[in-house]
Amino acid sequence: MTRGVFITLEGGDGSGKTTQAELLEEWLAGRGRTVVRTREPGGTDVGVEVREIVLHHRGDIAPRAEALLYAADRAHHVATVVRPALERGDIVIQDRYIDSSVAYQGAGRVLDPEEVRFVSEWATEGLLPDLTILLDLDADAARARLDRARTRYDRLEAEASEFHDRVRTAYLELAAAEPGRFLVVDAALPADDIAAAIRGRVAGLV
Amino acid sequence: MTRGVFITLEGGDGSGKTTQAELLEEWLAGRGRTVVRTREPGGTDVGVEVREIVLHHRGDIAPRAEALLYAADRAHHVATVVRPALERGDIVIQDRYIDSSVAYQGAGRVLDPEEVRFVSEWATEGLLPDLTILLDLDADAARARLDRARTRYDRLEAEASEFHDRVRTAYLELAAAEPGRFLVVDAALPADDIAAAIRGRVAGLV
Repeated sequence: MTRGVFITLEGGDGSGKTTQAELLEEWLAGRGRTVVRTREPGGTDVGVEVREIVLHHRGDIAPRAEALLYAADRAHHVATVVRPALERGDIVIQDRYIDSSVAYQGAGRVLDPEEVRFVSEWATEGLLPDLTILLDLDADAARARLDRARTRYDRLEAEASEFHDRVRTAYLELAAAEPGRFLVVDAALPADDIAAAIRGRVAGLV
Repeated sequence: MTRGVFITLEGGDGSGKTTQAELLEEWLAGRGRTVVRTREPGGTDVGVEVREIVLHHRGDIAPRAEALLYAADRAHHVATVVRPALERGDIVIQDRYIDSSVAYQGAGRVLDPEEVRFVSEWATEGLLPDLTILLDLDADAARARLDRARTRYDRLEAEASEFHDRVRTAYLELAAAEPGRFLVVDAALPADDIAAAIRGRVAGLV
């Protein structure tokens, strides 16, 4: 049992999670709430060391080993940062959580997403967010954002686009399965409109 | 499906696992078999980095995070060292494996041993040893070995002795549950006698 409110932000890179986390933190702080803004992976000292292995190890890491390293980061982060904050009654705003692992592993097609979820739920003793904000960016909008930076696509970028589609589909399936936990917002909207939609939902929780 | 033979050694620190692994490797090599001798944690380059976190991180690591770090080490080790060796038809002699995690976590009383086993079996895609040699040292013999180095016990050493008892009990329960996989040898016997007992059992496998 915890007294605080646990809010996670999900979505592809570049979907605006950091901006929205900042705007939400400002708004809640303005209402006198204590906010802990954090992220995974790497939200703790142990997490920074784990992230260093995952991102900078020379050579391949076996897929299950990588999933377990992320889960270890998550276990330590929840035990030492998130749960203590929620027990104090704070509001936790977190960039990425279990849904990221499930969506990306599902999109990667290497591991069974339900098994990845099980490992993460064991890592966190089943701690789920009160609200998960999915910043959803459709393929055209994602392509348009890329277009601003590129004039043509190589093979790798085309693959990246397919990968983005699969991540997006996985996220939308997760949101459809738990409509009570998820708020899905069109990430192509202006940042202020997105922030207003988020505040509308959060106001009912805090 | 693998063609090789997977042999693990288990037991407390100081029970003689390294000596017996060396003697068994020598004997098998003398019979013309290719042997891979390895260990957990730390049997790979990723494992060395993980071991560095587990052993040398300044400050506590949450129990589930620690268990997941060991499982990550195990996942990478099995995928990149153990399975390839078994698929080549080699004999793998390994110092510590899943039973270590289960016995020590069980003795530590912090995590559910069956959940720890589940995570390790997911990490390894269910790879179990063909033979597990448990070098069993009773409390008196363990105390006698300590006595050679110490003349009196402080609180920490007394606790260590109780911890040793709990690890031993957990190991013996694992062996009793899977008599077909385990060979339990009295680690207080002379090293040559232990080696002979191990060779007698291994001869039926290779």
